[in-house]
Amino acid sequence: MPKLYVVGLGPGGGDTMTIKAAKALEDSEVIVGYSAYIELVRKDFPHREYVVSGMGQEEERCRLCLERSRRGERVALVCSGDPGVYGMASPLLLMAEEYPDCDIEVVSGVTAATAGAALLGAPLGHDFCVISLSDILTPWDYIENRLRMAAMGDFAIALYNPSSRNRPDHLKRACRILLEHIPKDRVCGLVRNAGRTGEEMQICTLGSLGDMQADMFTTVYVGNSMSVLSGGRMIAMRNQMQGGV
Amino acid sequence: MPKLYVVGLGPGGGDTMTIKAAKALEDSEVIVGYSAYIELVRKDFPHREYVVSGMGQEEERCRLCLERSRRGERVALVCSGDPGVYGMASPLLLMAEEYPDCDIEVVSGVTAATAGAALLGAPLGHDFCVISLSDILTPWDYIENRLRMAAMGDFAIALYNPSSRNRPDHLKRACRILLEHIPKDRVCGLVRNAGRTGEEMQICTLGSLGDMQADMFTTVYVGNSMSVLSGGRMIAMRNQMQGGV
Repeated sequence: MPKLYVVGLGPGGGDTMTIKAAKALEDSEVIVGYSAYIELVRKDFPHREYVVSGMGQEEERCRLCLERSRRGERVALVCSGDPGVYGMASPLLLMAEEYPDCDIEVVSGVTAATAGAALLGAPLGHDFCVISLSDILTPWDYIENRLRMAAMGDFAIALYNPSSRNRPDHLKRACRILLEHIPKDRVCGLVRNAGRTGEEMQICTLGSLGDMQADMFTTVYVGNSMSVLSGGRMIAMRNQMQGGV
Repeated sequence: MPKLYVVGLGPGGGDTMTIKAAKALEDSEVIVGYSAYIELVRKDFPHREYVVSGMGQEEERCRLCLERSRRGERVALVCSGDPGVYGMASPLLLMAEEYPDCDIEVVSGVTAATAGAALLGAPLGHDFCVISLSDILTPWDYIENRLRMAAMGDFAIALYNPSSRNRPDHLKRACRILLEHIPKDRVCGLVRNAGRTGEEMQICTLGSLGDMQADMFTTVYVGNSMSVLSGGRMIAMRNQMQGGV
């Protein structure tokens, strides 16, 4: 049976994906994914069958990949970033227990946290946390607790899904919690559309972060106590010997 | 002035690097890095000047890159994984304030946390922390606090530098702290040499993790309360609606 690939496209497909990811797509007959991700690869990998599925139809998407792989087709399920970070690896591998013959390979990609970090400087240069502010699959009080622990642990923080149409105030609410533990002049940054058309970034402070524009394509960075702004870049210093909680 | 690239090679160079990283190396006359990382690229990018520097000589390495870039040479500083995660981006960008003319580009790579995760399953499929157990630049009590907060926040955890010749008991000490907050049957995993020769992985429990073999090339994973072992894979479920701290 051929491999079923779960492929991370990196932040923007194209040359932001790994050579291994490109080889996996080259090797596939059928490429399955959410419409926005399919658009990242369709032009570079023509003459393939593309199966475009909508947001929220993740279970159907996984089922389709496993069924077609079991039939002997060479299938790739694509996600932006890394499939293992809020991506399709988790739901697909859980369902894979029903398909023991399928030979699945997860092909990593550069996740938004580190792709955006490279544009701002090195905001994740020391220990860090990645937290999603989406409460679709996670209760909000659970997210709040994680924000508190991240602040009390003096982690650099990358926030995914900081805001959306249905939860426009999540970033502001998250900032309110972080401000209970972190001074308001702490350096913060935002990166929108990392690696894609419309890429932009901003540096601000935690005090002003809650009022910044952010959407589903934005990754937000909160510095730790050893983060500095140097030459216009946000950098978490690696030497924490002088730091204090 | 040409670009000075800080290039992440992904876990093992070769096809684990991004197409963009390969282009940056293709474009460079001088490639600088720690010996183990130079070995990952030398054969694929011949006819270049290689400057190999030892471990610990990071400041000299950054200085050399900035000086030679200022002279108009096309330089790439290479690191394994992502340059922004315990890599060279932070020290180089800090020093770059003295070299305002240098045009620096950080080229992201797949970091060990997500590369190793892809081999185990999807252990970082939900919110996660990345913590280094090296106390060379960070006081140990600082690391202990981060471990506690990561456990209390119910994060999935990736541990870098779990052990070395000079600190053979760090993983065991870290486990002792995590066990104050996390039950001993929590699923854990280890990946050694992800993407390189000698790649191997193991699944265990938090209770036995402290006795596992780990070294500088190992990444260690500790599940969160919603992590499961399914079909031999370690998976953090994305739906945390049923979970509890």
